[in-house]
Amino acid sequence: MPNSTALPLVILSEQFARLPGIGMKTAQRLAYHVVSLPDEEAKAFADAIMNAHSSIHECGICCNLTDQRICPVCSDDMRDTSTICVVETPKDITAFERTNEYHGVYHVLHGLISPLDGITPDMIRIKELLSRISKGDVKEVIMATNPTVEGEATAMYISKLIKPLGIKVTRLAFGLPIGGTLEFADEVTLFKALENRSEIG
Amino acid sequence: MPNSTALPLVILSEQFARLPGIGMKTAQRLAYHVVSLPDEEAKAFADAIMNAHSSIHECGICCNLTDQRICPVCSDDMRDTSTICVVETPKDITAFERTNEYHGVYHVLHGLISPLDGITPDMIRIKELLSRISKGDVKEVIMATNPTVEGEATAMYISKLIKPLGIKVTRLAFGLPIGGTLEFADEVTLFKALENRSEIG
Repeated sequence: MPNSTALPLVILSEQFARLPGIGMKTAQRLAYHVVSLPDEEAKAFADAIMNAHSSIHECGICCNLTDQRICPVCSDDMRDTSTICVVETPKDITAFERTNEYHGVYHVLHGLISPLDGITPDMIRIKELLSRISKGDVKEVIMATNPTVEGEATAMYISKLIKPLGIKVTRLAFGLPIGGTLEFADEVTLFKALENRSEIG
Repeated sequence: MPNSTALPLVILSEQFARLPGIGMKTAQRLAYHVVSLPDEEAKAFADAIMNAHSSIHECGICCNLTDQRICPVCSDDMRDTSTICVVETPKDITAFERTNEYHGVYHVLHGLISPLDGITPDMIRIKELLSRISKGDVKEVIMATNPTVEGEATAMYISKLIKPLGIKVTRLAFGLPIGGTLEFADEVTLFKALENRSEIG
Protein backbone atom coordinates (compact mmCIF):
# COMPACT_ATOMS: atom_id res chain seq x y z
CA MET A 1 0.00 0.00 0.00
CA PRO A 2 1.21 3.56 -0.67
CA ASN A 3 2.52 5.43 2.35
CA SER A 4 -0.65 7.53 2.52
CA THR A 5 -1.98 4.64 4.63
CA ALA A 6 -1.02 4.73 8.31
CA LEU A 7 1.39 2.00 9.42
CA PRO A 8 -0.84 0.37 12.12
CA LEU A 9 -3.52 0.00 9.45
CA VAL A 10 -1.04 -1.61 7.05
CA ILE A 11 0.06 -4.03 9.79
CA LEU A 12 -3.53 -4.97 10.63
CA SER A 13 -4.35 -5.42 6.92
CA GLU A 14 -1.37 -7.75 6.59
CA GLN A 15 -2.56 -9.76 9.59
CA PHE A 16 -5.98 -10.22 8.01
CA ALA A 17 -4.39 -11.10 4.65
CA ARG A 18 -2.54 -14.00 6.32
CA LEU A 19 -5.87 -15.69 7.12
CA PRO A 20 -6.89 -18.42 4.66
CA GLY A 21 -9.08 -17.19 1.81
CA ILE A 22 -8.66 -13.49 2.62
CA GLY A 23 -7.02 -11.46 -0.16
CA MET A 24 -5.30 -8.09 0.26
CA LYS A 25 -8.37 -6.04 -0.79
CA THR A 26 -10.68 -7.83 1.65
CA ALA A 27 -8.01 -7.58 4.34
CA GLN A 28 -7.84 -3.83 3.85
CA ARG A 29 -11.62 -3.53 4.04
CA LEU A 30 -11.69 -5.55 7.28
CA ALA A 31 -8.87 -3.46 8.79
CA TYR A 32 -10.77 -0.22 8.08
CA HIS A 33 -13.87 -1.80 9.60
CA VAL A 34 -12.06 -2.78 12.80
CA VAL A 35 -10.62 0.72 13.17
CA SER A 36 -14.14 2.17 12.91
CA LEU A 37 -15.53 -0.10 15.66
CA PRO A 38 -16.37 1.25 19.12
CA ASP A 39 -13.55 0.69 21.67
CA GLU A 40 -15.26 -2.16 23.48
CA GLU A 41 -16.00 -4.08 20.28
CA ALA A 42 -12.40 -3.89 19.06
CA LYS A 43 -11.27 -5.06 22.50
CA ALA A 44 -13.80 -7.92 22.48
CA PHE A 45 -12.43 -9.05 19.12
CA ALA A 46 -8.79 -9.00 20.25
CA ASP A 47 -9.76 -10.71 23.54
CA ALA A 48 -11.67 -13.44 21.69
CA ILE A 49 -8.54 -14.23 19.68
CA MET A 50 -6.26 -14.44 22.71
CA ASN A 51 -8.85 -16.29 24.77
CA ALA A 52 -9.66 -18.90 22.14
CA HIS A 53 -5.99 -19.36 21.36
CA SER A 54 -4.89 -19.84 24.97
CA SER A 55 -7.78 -21.97 26.23
CA ILE A 56 -8.31 -24.35 23.30
CA HIS A 57 -6.41 -27.65 23.09
CA GLU A 58 -7.06 -31.22 22.02
CA CYS A 59 -9.44 -33.49 23.95
CA GLY A 60 -7.51 -36.17 25.85
CA ILE A 61 -9.63 -38.89 24.23
CA CYS A 62 -10.77 -37.93 20.71
CA CYS A 63 -8.37 -35.04 19.85
CA ASN A 64 -11.32 -32.69 19.10
CA LEU A 65 -10.58 -29.08 20.04
CA THR A 66 -12.01 -28.15 23.44
CA ASP A 67 -11.46 -25.80 26.36
CA GLN A 68 -11.95 -28.65 28.84
CA ARG A 69 -9.76 -31.68 29.57
CA ILE A 70 -12.30 -33.97 27.88
CA CYS A 71 -14.61 -32.62 25.15
CA PRO A 72 -18.43 -32.50 25.62
CA VAL A 73 -19.00 -35.48 23.31
CA CYS A 74 -16.52 -37.75 25.07
CA SER A 75 -17.78 -36.73 28.51
CA ASP A 76 -21.43 -37.38 27.54
CA ASP A 77 -22.57 -40.68 29.14
CA MET A 78 -25.36 -41.02 26.57
CA ARG A 79 -22.96 -41.47 23.64
CA ASP A 80 -22.23 -44.92 22.29
CA THR A 81 -18.47 -45.35 22.77
CA SER A 82 -18.42 -48.59 20.77
CA THR A 83 -18.70 -46.62 17.50
CA ILE A 84 -15.95 -44.20 16.52
CA CYS A 85 -16.37 -41.85 13.57
CA VAL A 86 -12.91 -40.84 12.26
CA VAL A 87 -12.77 -37.35 10.75
CA GLU A 88 -10.09 -35.06 9.39
CA THR A 89 -10.91 -31.84 11.27
CA PRO A 90 -12.93 -30.61 14.26
CA LYS A 91 -15.23 -28.79 11.79
CA ASP A 92 -16.35 -32.17 10.47
CA ILE A 93 -17.68 -33.04 13.94
CA THR A 94 -19.79 -29.89 13.85
CA ALA A 95 -21.26 -31.06 10.54
CA PHE A 96 -22.15 -34.51 11.94
CA GLU A 97 -23.59 -33.08 15.13
CA ARG A 98 -25.91 -30.87 13.07
CA THR A 99 -27.59 -34.00 11.68
CA ASN A 100 -28.65 -35.00 15.22
CA GLU A 101 -28.50 -38.59 13.96
CA TYR A 102 -25.11 -39.79 15.10
CA HIS A 103 -24.85 -41.00 18.68
CA GLY A 104 -21.40 -42.55 18.67
CA VAL A 105 -18.11 -40.76 19.42
CA TYR A 106 -15.45 -39.22 17.18
CA HIS A 107 -11.75 -39.22 16.52
CA VAL A 108 -10.09 -36.21 14.89
CA LEU A 109 -6.99 -36.97 12.79
CA HIS A 110 -5.98 -33.30 12.36
CA GLY A 111 -4.90 -33.92 8.80
CA LEU A 112 -4.69 -36.58 6.13
CA ILE A 113 -1.77 -38.69 4.95
CA SER A 114 -0.26 -36.87 1.99
CA PRO A 115 3.25 -37.90 0.92
CA LEU A 116 3.36 -35.09 -1.67
CA ASP A 117 2.86 -32.51 1.09
CA GLY A 118 5.27 -34.36 3.37
CA ILE A 119 2.52 -35.52 5.75
CA THR A 120 3.30 -39.02 6.93
CA PRO A 121 1.02 -41.28 9.06
CA ASP A 122 2.93 -40.44 12.26
CA MET A 123 2.11 -36.73 11.82
CA ILE A 124 -1.65 -37.19 12.25
CA ARG A 125 -3.50 -38.69 15.26
CA ILE A 126 -3.45 -42.33 14.13
CA LYS A 127 -1.53 -43.73 17.07
CA GLU A 128 -3.98 -42.01 19.45
CA LEU A 129 -6.79 -43.80 17.60
CA LEU A 130 -5.05 -47.17 17.82
CA SER A 131 -4.30 -46.80 21.52
CA ARG A 132 -7.96 -45.89 22.08
CA ILE A 133 -9.12 -48.98 20.21
CA SER A 134 -6.65 -51.21 22.06
CA LYS A 135 -8.21 -50.17 25.37
CA GLY A 136 -11.56 -51.53 24.74
CA ASP A 137 -15.01 -52.10 23.60
CA VAL A 138 -14.90 -50.55 20.11
CA LYS A 139 -17.12 -52.47 17.65
CA GLU A 140 -17.15 -50.20 14.59
CA VAL A 141 -14.90 -47.53 13.15
CA ILE A 142 -16.54 -45.29 10.53
CA MET A 143 -14.00 -43.72 8.17
CA ALA A 144 -15.48 -40.29 7.47
CA THR A 145 -12.61 -38.56 5.69
CA ASN A 146 -13.45 -36.55 2.58
CA PRO A 147 -13.77 -38.29 -0.80
CA THR A 148 -10.44 -36.92 -2.06
CA VAL A 149 -7.27 -38.80 -2.99
CA GLU A 150 -5.77 -38.10 0.44
CA GLY A 151 -9.05 -38.86 2.22
CA GLU A 152 -9.38 -42.22 0.48
CA ALA A 153 -5.73 -43.12 1.04
CA THR A 154 -5.96 -42.28 4.74
CA ALA A 155 -9.17 -44.29 5.10
CA MET A 156 -7.53 -47.28 3.41
CA TYR A 157 -4.36 -46.99 5.50
CA ILE A 158 -6.23 -46.87 8.80
CA SER A 159 -8.67 -49.62 7.86
CA LYS A 160 -5.73 -51.93 7.09
CA LEU A 161 -4.38 -51.31 10.59
CA ILE A 162 -7.71 -51.82 12.34
CA LYS A 163 -9.36 -54.68 10.46
CA PRO A 164 -6.86 -57.33 11.71
CA LEU A 165 -8.03 -56.46 15.24
CA GLY A 166 -11.44 -57.89 14.35
CA ILE A 167 -13.18 -54.52 14.34
CA LYS A 168 -15.75 -53.59 11.69
CA VAL A 169 -14.49 -50.70 9.52
CA THR A 170 -17.01 -48.81 7.39
CA ARG A 171 -16.82 -45.88 4.96
CA LEU A 172 -19.40 -43.14 4.39
CA ALA A 173 -21.69 -43.65 1.38
CA PHE A 174 -21.00 -41.51 -1.67
CA GLY A 175 -23.56 -40.66 -4.33
CA LEU A 176 -25.89 -37.90 -5.46
CA PRO A 177 -26.36 -35.18 -2.85
CA ILE A 178 -29.97 -34.84 -1.66
CA GLY A 179 -31.56 -31.92 -3.48
CA GLY A 180 -28.91 -32.17 -6.23
CA THR A 181 -29.82 -32.95 -9.81
CA LEU A 182 -28.34 -35.42 -12.29
CA GLU A 183 -27.69 -32.57 -14.67
CA PHE A 184 -25.19 -30.92 -12.36
CA ALA A 185 -23.59 -34.03 -10.89
CA ASP A 186 -19.97 -34.62 -11.92
CA GLU A 187 -18.99 -37.92 -13.58
CA VAL A 188 -17.30 -39.41 -10.53
CA THR A 189 -20.25 -38.71 -8.24
CA LEU A 190 -22.63 -40.15 -10.82
CA PHE A 191 -20.45 -43.23 -11.21
CA LYS A 192 -20.43 -43.70 -7.42
CA ALA A 193 -24.20 -43.24 -7.30
CA LEU A 194 -24.61 -45.88 -9.98
CA GLU A 195 -22.09 -48.27 -8.44
CA ASN A 196 -23.62 -48.03 -4.98
CA ARG A 197 -27.25 -48.24 -6.15
CA SER A 198 -29.63 -50.11 -3.87
CA GLU A 199 -32.78 -52.10 -4.55
CA ILE A 200 -36.10 -50.33 -4.07
CA GLY A 201 -38.73 -51.70 -1.70
CA MET B 1 -23.18 -24.18 16.48
CA PRO B 2 -23.86 -27.44 18.39
CA ASN B 3 -22.34 -27.63 21.87
CA SER B 4 -19.67 -30.01 20.64
CA THR B 5 -17.79 -26.80 19.75
CA ALA B 6 -15.87 -25.20 22.61
CA LEU B 7 -17.27 -21.87 23.82
CA PRO B 8 -14.16 -19.72 23.20
CA LEU B 9 -14.19 -20.98 19.61
CA VAL B 10 -17.87 -20.09 19.25
CA ILE B 11 -17.19 -16.60 20.61
CA LEU B 12 -14.27 -16.08 18.22
CA SER B 13 -16.35 -17.35 15.28
CA GLU B 14 -19.08 -14.88 16.17
CA GLN B 15 -16.54 -12.07 16.28
CA PHE B 16 -15.32 -12.94 12.79
CA ALA B 17 -18.91 -13.26 11.54
CA ARG B 18 -19.57 -9.64 12.58
CA LEU B 19 -17.01 -8.40 10.06
CA PRO B 20 -18.49 -7.18 6.77
CA GLY B 21 -18.71 -9.87 4.07
CA ILE B 22 -17.77 -12.74 6.39
CA GLY B 23 -20.46 -15.41 6.75
CA MET B 24 -20.78 -17.93 9.58
CA LYS B 25 -18.97 -20.73 7.70
CA THR B 26 -16.00 -18.55 6.78
CA ALA B 27 -15.96 -17.17 10.33
CA GLN B 28 -15.74 -20.68 11.73
CA ARG B 29 -12.92 -21.56 9.35
CA LEU B 30 -11.01 -18.42 10.35
CA ALA B 31 -11.53 -19.16 14.06
CA TYR B 32 -10.10 -22.67 13.69
CA HIS B 33 -7.18 -21.22 11.77
CA VAL B 34 -6.41 -18.68 14.50
CA VAL B 35 -6.52 -21.38 17.18
CA SER B 36 -3.99 -23.41 15.20
CA LEU B 37 -1.52 -20.50 14.91
CA PRO B 38 1.70 -20.42 16.94
CA ASP B 39 1.40 -18.36 20.15
CA GLU B 40 3.33 -15.36 18.86
CA GLU B 41 1.28 -15.11 15.65
CA ALA B 42 -2.03 -15.13 17.51
CA LYS B 43 -0.66 -12.46 19.82
CA ALA B 44 0.59 -10.39 16.86
CA PHE B 45 -2.91 -10.52 15.36
CA ALA B 46 -4.66 -9.44 18.57
CA ASP B 47 -2.03 -6.72 19.13
CA ALA B 48 -2.45 -5.41 15.57
CA ILE B 49 -6.19 -4.96 16.23
CA MET B 50 -5.71 -3.11 19.50
CA ASN B 51 -2.81 -1.06 18.17
CA ALA B 52 -4.57 0.01 14.95
CA HIS B 53 -7.74 0.77 16.84
CA SER B 54 -6.11 2.88 19.53
CA SER B 55 -3.59 4.78 17.39
CA ILE B 56 -5.70 5.59 14.32
CA HIS B 57 -7.78 8.77 14.14
CA GLU B 58 -8.75 11.39 11.59
CA CYS B 59 -6.19 13.80 10.16
CA GLY B 60 -6.71 17.33 11.53
CA ILE B 61 -6.85 18.71 8.00
CA CYS B 62 -8.30 16.20 5.51
CA CYS B 63 -10.05 13.68 7.84
CA ASN B 64 -8.08 10.76 6.32
CA LEU B 65 -7.24 8.05 8.87
CA THR B 66 -3.73 8.39 10.26
CA ASP B 67 -1.66 7.60 13.34
CA GLN B 68 -0.14 11.09 13.30
CA ARG B 69 -1.73 14.45 14.00
CA ILE B 70 -1.55 15.38 10.29
CA CYS B 71 -1.56 12.64 7.62
CA PRO B 72 1.46 12.05 5.31
CA VAL B 73 -0.31 13.65 2.32
CA CYS B 74 -1.26 16.86 4.17
CA SER B 75 2.21 17.14 5.75
CA ASP B 76 3.95 16.70 2.38
CA ASP B 77 5.23 20.12 1.19
CA MET B 78 5.34 18.88 -2.41
CA ARG B 79 1.55 18.47 -2.68
CA ASP B 80 -0.53 21.13 -4.38
CA THR B 81 -2.89 22.36 -1.65
CA SER B 82 -4.91 24.44 -4.13
CA THR B 83 -6.62 21.29 -5.46
CA ILE B 84 -8.77 19.18 -3.13
CA CYS B 85 -10.07 15.78 -4.21
CA VAL B 86 -13.21 14.94 -2.18
CA VAL B 87 -13.71 11.20 -1.54
CA GLU B 88 -16.10 9.06 0.47
CA THR B 89 -13.63 6.82 2.32
CA PRO B 90 -9.91 6.61 3.19
CA LYS B 91 -9.68 3.57 0.89
CA ASP B 92 -10.44 5.86 -2.08
CA ILE B 93 -7.27 7.83 -1.29
CA THR B 94 -5.26 4.61 -1.52
CA ALA B 95 -6.74 4.04 -4.98
CA PHE B 96 -5.81 7.55 -6.18
CA GLU B 97 -2.32 7.33 -4.72
CA ARG B 98 -1.73 4.11 -6.64
CA THR B 99 -2.10 6.03 -9.91
CA ASN B 100 0.90 8.21 -8.94
CA GLU B 101 -0.73 10.91 -11.08
CA TYR B 102 -2.55 13.06 -8.54
CA HIS B 103 -0.47 15.65 -6.74
CA GLY B 104 -3.17 17.65 -4.97
CA VAL B 105 -4.60 16.94 -1.52
CA TYR B 106 -7.71 15.09 -0.36
CA HIS B 107 -10.77 15.46 1.82
CA VAL B 108 -12.50 12.38 3.25
CA LEU B 109 -16.26 12.72 3.84
CA HIS B 110 -16.57 9.44 5.80
CA GLY B 111 -19.92 8.70 4.19
CA LEU B 112 -22.41 10.01 1.66
CA ILE B 113 -25.65 11.93 2.10
CA SER B 114 -28.41 9.33 2.17
CA PRO B 115 -31.79 10.43 3.57
CA LEU B 116 -33.14 6.86 3.24
CA ASP B 117 -30.42 5.61 5.60
CA GLY B 118 -30.86 8.63 7.86
CA ILE B 119 -27.51 10.13 6.88
CA THR B 120 -27.88 13.92 6.68
CA PRO B 121 -25.24 16.43 5.43
CA ASP B 122 -24.20 17.31 8.99
CA MET B 123 -23.25 13.68 9.68
CA ILE B 124 -20.40 13.64 7.15
CA ARG B 125 -17.29 15.88 7.02
CA ILE B 126 -18.80 18.68 4.90
CA LYS B 127 -18.36 21.51 7.42
CA GLU B 128 -14.68 20.51 7.80
CA LEU B 129 -14.34 20.86 4.02
CA LEU B 130 -16.03 24.27 4.00
CA SER B 131 -13.92 25.58 6.86
CA ARG B 132 -10.81 24.36 5.01
CA ILE B 133 -11.87 26.18 1.85
CA SER B 134 -12.72 29.36 3.73
CA LYS B 135 -9.13 29.54 5.04
CA GLY B 136 -7.48 29.93 1.77
CA ASP B 137 -5.99 29.35 -1.54
CA VAL B 138 -8.19 26.54 -2.89
CA LYS B 139 -8.70 26.83 -6.65
CA GLU B 140 -10.37 23.54 -7.57
CA VAL B 141 -12.46 20.94 -5.77
CA ILE B 142 -12.71 17.57 -7.53
CA MET B 143 -15.82 15.62 -6.51
CA ALA B 144 -14.62 12.00 -6.57
CA THR B 145 -17.55 10.25 -4.92
CA ASN B 146 -18.73 7.00 -6.51
CA PRO B 147 -21.18 7.13 -9.46
CA THR B 148 -24.12 5.94 -7.31
CA VAL B 149 -27.32 7.78 -6.43
CA GLU B 150 -25.86 8.83 -3.07
CA GLY B 151 -22.49 9.68 -4.61
CA GLU B 152 -24.09 11.90 -7.26
CA ALA B 153 -26.41 13.58 -4.75
CA THR B 154 -23.54 14.31 -2.37
CA ALA B 155 -21.40 15.70 -5.23
CA MET B 156 -24.30 17.98 -6.30
CA TYR B 157 -25.01 19.12 -2.72
CA ILE B 158 -21.39 20.05 -2.03
CA SER B 159 -20.85 21.71 -5.41
CA LYS B 160 -23.86 23.96 -4.77
CA LEU B 161 -22.27 25.08 -1.50
CA ILE B 162 -18.83 25.69 -2.99
CA LYS B 163 -19.51 27.20 -6.42
CA PRO B 164 -20.88 30.50 -5.04
CA LEU B 165 -17.44 31.00 -3.41
CA GLY B 166 -15.94 31.31 -6.89
CA ILE B 167 -14.12 27.97 -6.72
CA LYS B 168 -13.99 25.61 -9.70
CA VAL B 169 -15.83 22.36 -8.92
CA THR B 170 -15.20 19.35 -11.16
CA ARG B 171 -16.45 15.77 -11.27
CA LEU B 172 -14.55 12.62 -12.27
CA ALA B 173 -15.12 11.45 -15.87
CA PHE B 174 -17.34 8.41 -16.31
CA GLY B 175 -17.22 6.11 -19.31
CA LEU B 176 -15.89 2.77 -20.46
CA PRO B 177 -13.25 1.33 -18.14
CA ILE B 178 -9.84 0.88 -19.82
CA GLY B 179 -9.51 -2.76 -20.84
CA GLY B 180 -13.26 -3.19 -20.71
CA THR B 181 -15.27 -4.10 -23.79
CA LEU B 182 -18.48 -2.64 -25.23
CA GLU B 183 -20.06 -6.07 -25.03
CA PHE B 184 -19.90 -6.16 -21.24
CA ALA B 185 -20.56 -2.48 -20.53
CA ASP B 186 -23.90 -1.75 -18.86
CA GLU B 187 -26.32 0.70 -20.51
CA VAL B 188 -25.66 3.58 -18.13
CA THR B 189 -21.88 3.36 -18.55
CA LEU B 190 -22.28 3.19 -22.31
CA PHE B 191 -24.62 6.18 -22.30
CA LYS B 192 -22.08 8.15 -20.23
CA ALA B 193 -19.30 7.11 -22.62
CA LEU B 194 -21.36 8.34 -25.56
CA GLU B 195 -22.48 11.54 -23.88
CA ASN B 196 -18.93 12.45 -22.80
CA ARG B 197 -17.29 11.54 -26.11
CA SER B 198 -14.38 13.70 -27.21
CA GLU B 199 -13.03 14.68 -30.61
CA ILE B 200 -10.09 12.70 -31.94
CA GLY B 201 -6.84 14.43 -32.95
